[in-house]
Amino acid sequence: MVLAVEWREASGSIRLIDQTVLPDREEYLDITTVDALVDAIERLAVRGAPALGAVGGLGVVLAMLQGSREGWSAERLDTEIDRVRLARPTAVNLAWGVDQVRPAVTSGVAAVLDQARRLIEEDTAANRRLARLGADWILERTGKDVVRVVTHCNTGALATTAWGTAYGIVHELHDRGRLGLVYADETRPLLQGARLTSWELTQDGIDHVVEVDGAASSTILRGLVDVAIIGADRITANGDTANKVGSVALALACARAGIPFVVAAPSSTVDLATATGEEIVIEERSSDEVLTLAGRRVAPASARAFNPAFDVTPHDLISAIVTELGVVEPAKNPHPRLLAPIAG
Amino acid sequence: MVLAVEWREASGSIRLIDQTVLPDREEYLDITTVDALVDAIERLAVRGAPALGAVGGLGVVLAMLQGSREGWSAERLDTEIDRVRLARPTAVNLAWGVDQVRPAVTSGVAAVLDQARRLIEEDTAANRRLARLGADWILERTGKDVVRVVTHCNTGALATTAWGTAYGIVHELHDRGRLGLVYADETRPLLQGARLTSWELTQDGIDHVVEVDGAASSTILRGLVDVAIIGADRITANGDTANKVGSVALALACARAGIPFVVAAPSSTVDLATATGEEIVIEERSSDEVLTLAGRRVAPASARAFNPAFDVTPHDLISAIVTELGVVEPAKNPHPRLLAPIAG
Repeated sequence: MVLAVEWREASGSIRLIDQTVLPDREEYLDITTVDALVDAIERLAVRGAPALGAVGGLGVVLAMLQGSREGWSAERLDTEIDRVRLARPTAVNLAWGVDQVRPAVTSGVAAVLDQARRLIEEDTAANRRLARLGADWILERTGKDVVRVVTHCNTGALATTAWGTAYGIVHELHDRGRLGLVYADETRPLLQGARLTSWELTQDGIDHVVEVDGAASSTILRGLVDVAIIGADRITANGDTANKVGSVALALACARAGIPFVVAAPSSTVDLATATGEEIVIEERSSDEVLTLAGRRVAPASARAFNPAFDVTPHDLISAIVTELGVVEPAKNPHPRLLAPIAG
Repeated sequence: MVLAVEWREASGSIRLIDQTVLPDREEYLDITTVDALVDAIERLAVRGAPALGAVGGLGVVLAMLQGSREGWSAERLDTEIDRVRLARPTAVNLAWGVDQVRPAVTSGVAAVLDQARRLIEEDTAANRRLARLGADWILERTGKDVVRVVTHCNTGALATTAWGTAYGIVHELHDRGRLGLVYADETRPLLQGARLTSWELTQDGIDHVVEVDGAASSTILRGLVDVAIIGADRITANGDTANKVGSVALALACARAGIPFVVAAPSSTVDLATATGEEIVIEERSSDEVLTLAGRRVAPASARAFNPAFDVTPHDLISAIVTELGVVEPAKNPHPRLLAPIAG
């Protein structure tokens, strides 16, 4: 398995796989300065909420080591830690990771490194639990010896500190010898499926095919897969989920085909303050992501695009939501605040 | 409106818009020789069944004019006409167009040109009828003053001799002042929506946005459109339809949203010899179409793709099938041989 984020004891550095050049090249960044770390975060060499949490924790260690090499004052160290914390203001996990370890700064670098490692270990353990719970549920529900899977976007090691969420379940099924062919949606516009998920599947020796997003519905309706497994960016109190645009197409096809549609995410994704998916504001991103491919314009110069980043899947189409705390079945239990017991 | 195929009287030439360079450049080919015509057909400068039918008819005229300029024997003329006829062996309409006018060859070039023109006029008139019937049905069914539309792939003037099929209905609604915003799916892997449909909409001054195929389901579920209108490559006896991969996702979302899903195609698309969509063999195309974008590999070198060209929409998800002969409602009338009355 590839690790998105790793602490290198010998060199006192953070090792990141540079996600901006995947899958063309597999290049690692060994980062020893705050400047280099902020740069890597800003240009998305590392991405994904759990991975950024780990980077936040380890970033404090890095700043302390650099500070002691260069003789920073306490004020300078504070400023540099804040630079890590705010390198991507919208990524709450980055700030969260910094804040988790920062109280230990006065106890010295070893204490902070311990804290950062514990944070990563807890995240990894939760991730593995989620994968086991999801695999158990899917094998029981489908009753199949070997399960063929369709997935969407990237939910793997590159976005997390371990195996990933939906991808973690895929990996767990593979380890148990219960995984058939995986269909990976390419995931337009940014092609995280073709670029990253296919790369992770290749690294892990998992037999798979990439398909255009429009093919997913018929792949499901033709009986070529036994389950759809996807991630979530937000889960509302009634069990609706928001995920990468294109996800709800899989849910609709699964409902028609009578196969389970499974959402996997850390429990921190559950947002009890939002009652239903209808309240979620869908981020609309730049037209260029749709209208330009590999630097080349594909549509007429005057054309505009509609580029919603996410879509919402209503809970009645969701067979299971898997977190590290357990599995709930929104389609069967469509009452409000459904997830309160597991997320409270 | 742009014409995919046009006869130029003054120069005795066939004018084609070169579809291989759209939307980057709008270039026309004025073709006066069989060699140039065969080349244009082979490299897909002209495509689409009805457009190729017109090219077949006019190609015979072209061969006769070149033959009289160059003093061809009757045998040579026959051979050259056959070259046009077989330039794309799988395109039945091309051979059909040649065969329609060929009996008139002995009556001279004026007679053949008359035949070719009649063929095009009939096709154009049928196309316009289809557009009117479809627009009437949609306005009545939706009860809306202004109808917002989502469509998939390219079904416009570039593929036909007139306005197009699904696109023809869009155009008709526009002409009646009853068209709202159009959402054009980009249509991976070959991007006919982003490249061709958006170009045609731009030419016709129709307000539209391009969206990734994965966005179509949520566009429908969020209530952003009032109807989905798509084409068909084959319609089976029970009313199932085959169309560009991704189409059935729109049908599933329309059924959930309670808005009409409309299929528009010439009656020649109805295939009564095939009972249901399950009997249709789905063509699988090259992996490269999915894994390479603008000449650049997007997935790992060892990755494979699953690339079905079409998908099948079951008749119970289809609100209306519109041909030049009338409108049938498969979801309401799910009995076998449903289309026999209109296609018989």
